[in-house]
Amino acid sequence: MTIVLYELCAGDQARRFSPHCWKARMALAHKQLVYETRPTPFTRIKEIAGGFSPTVPVVDDGGKLVRDSFDIALYLDETYPDRPTLFGGEGGKATARFVESWALTALHPPLLGMIIGDIHAALAAPDRAYFRESREKRFGKRLEDVQTGREGRVEGFRQALQPLRHLLERQPFIGGQTPLFADYVVFGPLQWVRVISPFRVLAADDAVTAWFDRCLDLYDGLGRTMPAAA
Amino acid sequence: MTIVLYELCAGDQARRFSPHCWKARMALAHKQLVYETRPTPFTRIKEIAGGFSPTVPVVDDGGKLVRDSFDIALYLDETYPDRPTLFGGEGGKATARFVESWALTALHPPLLGMIIGDIHAALAAPDRAYFRESREKRFGKRLEDVQTGREGRVEGFRQALQPLRHLLERQPFIGGQTPLFADYVVFGPLQWVRVISPFRVLAADDAVTAWFDRCLDLYDGLGRTMPAAA
Repeated sequence: MTIVLYELCAGDQARRFSPHCWKARMALAHKQLVYETRPTPFTRIKEIAGGFSPTVPVVDDGGKLVRDSFDIALYLDETYPDRPTLFGGEGGKATARFVESWALTALHPPLLGMIIGDIHAALAAPDRAYFRESREKRFGKRLEDVQTGREGRVEGFRQALQPLRHLLERQPFIGGQTPLFADYVVFGPLQWVRVISPFRVLAADDAVTAWFDRCLDLYDGLGRTMPAAA
Repeated sequence: MTIVLYELCAGDQARRFSPHCWKARMALAHKQLVYETRPTPFTRIKEIAGGFSPTVPVVDDGGKLVRDSFDIALYLDETYPDRPTLFGGEGGKATARFVESWALTALHPPLLGMIIGDIHAALAAPDRAYFRESREKRFGKRLEDVQTGREGRVEGFRQALQPLRHLLERQPFIGGQTPLFADYVVFGPLQWVRVISPFRVLAADDAVTAWFDRCLDLYDGLGRTMPAAA
């Protein structure tokens, strides 16, 4: 049975921008599984399987529901052990959690601050109201005031990528010669920006950009099937 | 045959402070191997095995020489596969390189800047001259001027530990329920500071401090056999 992946969508439902949903989609492709996606606006996530999860991605694998991108990857690796591994063993699972913690603390917050207005602008009307209210409460200021000044912050963000840049002097992927889920954990937030914002957070001559391009090439250019925001 | 580990030493040859040598020593203990250490001042590294390596650690395993802490860990895991694994599989090896890149770029530079004068003060006279000349050339200023103002920089360093702090909300070690080499890669630089400098870089109530204490407890308190600098 075809796996169903519920993904966050913009006002244009073809535009799938969630970093976490991209991690799940790359994991499905890595496992060579057949899947369909279901566009899901923020305000309709609660309708998935009777309110199964407050967030997407959610995967429905023949009635088995799994939420959270990392848990989805763990589920897929355990359920389909004959497909290419997403972790490369128990040590890879544990250490991928460190990569996730790094991405969530060092990359997501500065990136969100640089694209939050662009996200808002791309949403459908009901999602816009939800997004503005919930995020302005979190930040304690207007979305526009969060995003403003991003040109002055982008260099600091690029500095935060230094661990990845250092690694890429040694090996082409975080997973080594080929990618693992740890790569998708970092690909996700950069794809988020690429799909939803015209602001360029990576410099063209950065080794991280070359790695991101390699990730976009994977699985017949899966990441490129989603156009970059103009 | 007993493995020999050549370690950097201070003027007090019992004081072994190199972060990289601590990674190697923890790896040997993790593998339950019998080893002896040889104290090696900076200026006598070139005498090891006829100039085998410009840096320590160096391991001599019955005539087989290996240098570089990560390469030593890889060698030990491959040579002694029946002992506890340091990586937990191929994915763990690749991803541990990311942890190493993070530690080398986000932790080592700020830590060195806070303890470089203390290192100098702890060395024997010939090492002091070498250390001052080589490091002042690298930094372009006097060692004392590098270290000064550390009280104002320590909070920034603690912020840089946020990825590890976030991970430790989920699991007790980077390796998961038990430590892997990835843990020692981060333990090393913190043990470096503990052994050579009275300056306290970790706050007592930090989850990272609790993790560091767990690492100090490993292998019958191996890390604690080296007294903290007073």
